[in-house]
Amino acid sequence: MGAVRRRLTRSGLSGLLVTHLPDLRYLSGFTGSSAALVVTRRSARLFTDGRYTAQAAEEVKASSVEIVSGGPAPAAVQWLAAQVGVEFAGFDPAWTTVAELARWKQALPARLRRNFLTPIAAPLVETLRLVKDEDELRIMADAALMGCRLFDHMLGFLRPGLMENEVAAELEHQARLQGAQGMSFDTIVASGIRSSLPHGRATTARLPRRGFLTLDFGIIHDGYCSDMTRTVYFGTPKPKERRAYQSVLEAQEAAVAAVSAGVSCGDVDEAARSVLRNAGLGDAFTHSTGHGVGLEIHEAPRLGAGQTSRLQAGMVVTIEPGVYLAGEFGIRIEDMVAVTRDGGWVLTPTPKALIEL
Amino acid sequence: MGAVRRRLTRSGLSGLLVTHLPDLRYLSGFTGSSAALVVTRRSARLFTDGRYTAQAAEEVKASSVEIVSGGPAPAAVQWLAAQVGVEFAGFDPAWTTVAELARWKQALPARLRRNFLTPIAAPLVETLRLVKDEDELRIMADAALMGCRLFDHMLGFLRPGLMENEVAAELEHQARLQGAQGMSFDTIVASGIRSSLPHGRATTARLPRRGFLTLDFGIIHDGYCSDMTRTVYFGTPKPKERRAYQSVLEAQEAAVAAVSAGVSCGDVDEAARSVLRNAGLGDAFTHSTGHGVGLEIHEAPRLGAGQTSRLQAGMVVTIEPGVYLAGEFGIRIEDMVAVTRDGGWVLTPTPKALIEL
Repeated sequence: MGAVRRRLTRSGLSGLLVTHLPDLRYLSGFTGSSAALVVTRRSARLFTDGRYTAQAAEEVKASSVEIVSGGPAPAAVQWLAAQVGVEFAGFDPAWTTVAELARWKQALPARLRRNFLTPIAAPLVETLRLVKDEDELRIMADAALMGCRLFDHMLGFLRPGLMENEVAAELEHQARLQGAQGMSFDTIVASGIRSSLPHGRATTARLPRRGFLTLDFGIIHDGYCSDMTRTVYFGTPKPKERRAYQSVLEAQEAAVAAVSAGVSCGDVDEAARSVLRNAGLGDAFTHSTGHGVGLEIHEAPRLGAGQTSRLQAGMVVTIEPGVYLAGEFGIRIEDMVAVTRDGGWVLTPTPKALIEL
Repeated sequence: MGAVRRRLTRSGLSGLLVTHLPDLRYLSGFTGSSAALVVTRRSARLFTDGRYTAQAAEEVKASSVEIVSGGPAPAAVQWLAAQVGVEFAGFDPAWTTVAELARWKQALPARLRRNFLTPIAAPLVETLRLVKDEDELRIMADAALMGCRLFDHMLGFLRPGLMENEVAAELEHQARLQGAQGMSFDTIVASGIRSSLPHGRATTARLPRRGFLTLDFGIIHDGYCSDMTRTVYFGTPKPKERRAYQSVLEAQEAAVAAVSAGVSCGDVDEAARSVLRNAGLGDAFTHSTGHGVGLEIHEAPRLGAGQTSRLQAGMVVTIEPGVYLAGEFGIRIEDMVAVTRDGGWVLTPTPKALIEL
């Protein structure tokens, strides 16, 4: 809460309304699905409904709790407006619909409707969330290792002729059995020619006797997301396929090696991209090198071409270059990497040399 | 598209911008994750990015397609503003963030920024979606039956001592194997005392030797959601538990019997609520009787106390009363029901008499 208050003061705001649930969880500890949190320079108060009375009492630290019968956000806005010294309250326009804002304004006295609620110019809580503390890093390392164990399990399960759907089902089943709260996104199982689709969700297509299989998946553990990708081969790869895999692997390792606090995101991207460009595969690498991950599967920063923002120690990012040759094949290799002061700590230590099944 | 155009005309709008993906899919057939659709009185155009070139060509009917390199929505807004005769374009404030609206306005010539984009007063496409046509009803009936088969399978799987997580894992695994695209919401597995939580997601708690188990789950089939709940008992129920189950069952059947085109949603709710009130369980029924379902798991109408909107033939709604006695137990029984001209067609024919396992 201290960090938020410092940022509030710097923005000239005397209060902040937080409704985006990952932001709210980050600040208050509350994991329910309906709540609004207000933070002023002096106090913090969480508003939720009667379903969550017990849960809020158990989870919420560093904030008082009020149970309301209408919507939590209008009640929060009214409370903010009644606080002495709160003249302008910020809200995050990226997580507020036009209809919500209209409802909140209706909850205010007429004289405050025009100016009291102010869209913040840049994400405030999300920016804090990018840098993980030790507790968060430990949870994320556990989440990533759970992913690695799942991949190991899948190596014993995969065989030609299985449907992609069956592969996803087995993976998700094992994730549940190992205690995952859920998957952090729709599992990608893309085999044969379908591996050339960067986001090929599992279908009824069957794993080929010969060809690539890309598995891109993540679990949710204690609220935090994991994310990893490995591409394996059924049978013996053709020379072109083997060369392409080797290029992606080199690109991925170059980008991992480039990770360090203070390095620009564009430079990490370029580390991967230049390897693929030199291998004649620059055009086949059609997306960014990676993204931040945490309570949400996609967080800032984006590790893309030309991005000038700099990595900070404690960020967790994915490094996931790939090549996609339409009608032929695709390959992607992805690790989660925690940024440290002088490098990166790979949270997904599963080997990356090409596995031939 | 014809129905949307009639509504556009009635609202005095010459164009509509659609960005909410279920609405967009409903109107155009497009199932990708990034697109904007504009509808004018004369034409319709879908904007998406290069990842979806092939998919859009295959899926989109009754609309032209334009592939753009920036965001689809700003391009759509610019195109709308350039159409002869389009003076005001509507957008849905419930599905547009304050930040998005600001970006869209920036894409417009300065003279149009203030007035060109107009929030629509009531959901326009969502209202059309509530009444399903024959094709949609067939898909939803298939989805509901897939749910019923899953429940049958689970009856052979359930036994005391299993973790709730294992139950969810088996259910979701079987759903995948049967060809479901995914689950329509986080599977609820609430056993023993936890059954008194209306929305108890699966945990590591173990199924009791004696007590209730509530299973509330749904799958996605061809884009449409299913939703059903059954509550079973391990061992022999105590008289109080048996009576409560019987009351919920009677309430559920009374509400199903009340479903018919022209009946108000509040009256359907009251049909269930009065049974539970008469049984002394009125306070234990803490939520609405049901909700619409379709491309989204929660759609209008809401079947709650005092709701005056009326059911229409072709709507699909859930009927799901429950009772929750904190620290003791909970029971919920839920069917999906398609509204017909003179009654309701139960899409989930799984028996509802209390099953003792």
